[in-house]
Amino acid sequence: MSPRPMARPGGRSARVQEAVHTAVRELESEVGRDALTVPLVAARAGVTPSTIYRRWGDLRELLSDMAVERLRPEALPENHGGLASDLTVWAEHFLDEMASPSGRAYIRDALLGDPDGSNAGQCSAYAADQVEVILARAAARGERAPEAETVLDHVVAPMMYRILFRPGGLDAAYARHLVAGVLDATG
Amino acid sequence: MSPRPMARPGGRSARVQEAVHTAVRELESEVGRDALTVPLVAARAGVTPSTIYRRWGDLRELLSDMAVERLRPEALPENHGGLASDLTVWAEHFLDEMASPSGRAYIRDALLGDPDGSNAGQCSAYAADQVEVILARAAARGERAPEAETVLDHVVAPMMYRILFRPGGLDAAYARHLVAGVLDATG
Repeated sequence: MSPRPMARPGGRSARVQEAVHTAVRELESEVGRDALTVPLVAARAGVTPSTIYRRWGDLRELLSDMAVERLRPEALPENHGGLASDLTVWAEHFLDEMASPSGRAYIRDALLGDPDGSNAGQCSAYAADQVEVILARAAARGERAPEAETVLDHVVAPMMYRILFRPGGLDAAYARHLVAGVLDATG
Repeated sequence: MSPRPMARPGGRSARVQEAVHTAVRELESEVGRDALTVPLVAARAGVTPSTIYRRWGDLRELLSDMAVERLRPEALPENHGGLASDLTVWAEHFLDEMASPSGRAYIRDALLGDPDGSNAGQCSAYAADQVEVILARAAARGERAPEAETVLDHVVAPMMYRILFRPGGLDAAYARHLVAGVLDATG
């Protein structure tokens, strides 16, 4: 998130954000990503360019904030009644979303316009929150479970590293292999 | 690397690259990163802007190529006579370099101006090559050793993930912990 102060939801600030995000999405599909400029987005959103500069800094930071919004999980992880299946299904979904063309574009945008690292930190916090939910369910069932940090290091990190640095071989079998490795080490 | 054809080393192409890289480094320290433009770099390097556009595409791709050059390891991994110490020392050095302010800036540059992912792939290949050297030495000594892919997934990936997404807690103890985990699972 941007370090700039945000007003309460539902106020003018929320309306400006909604209008600006909508303008970016429309213009992306009409003129393409590379033709976006702050004045163009401002004109479409019905705000002044200085409103955008004041709130987001520049176009890259605006796109980074939008990417983080789009990477926010929409639901709790599915509950399949056991740690192995919960974590496997979640990892498969996570890989599928993040390795898709739009997932890759959002990750890239999130990292790129993020001078203080807070948007990247938010992306990681989304994954950590989902993992914590899965591990808390396992604990409630009395199952042995790894630490959340272990899952981040050995399931989430390898997937994200490959997505960013070596995109071959990214399939559901890879996600299952990582989960099995972490659970074997725990069990 | 850029997909554009490169001439033989030592020819005009190599001289242009050297002049352009030098110009970028000088201008970065004189006017700052944000003030760099292709025309400014071209003027300082004594080439035309179209030479730069033809070879690198745009400024971001030029910076990405330079970052990959700077991330190239300068030496083989140190040989301490045993897998555990070789891998531990290498991982500590790797983390130290990559998590430094300049390391972070290069990783970021390498990822961002890289439309086809080849520069990111090159960064990962540098790490993989170093790991392969360490594992080949271990094999020659008759030591049990993990697969290179395992080291990338469970030592390199967690370090890079934290550098990019959650920069707290990055110290030599963390590198040692990751290496110990991989070696325990192998041994």
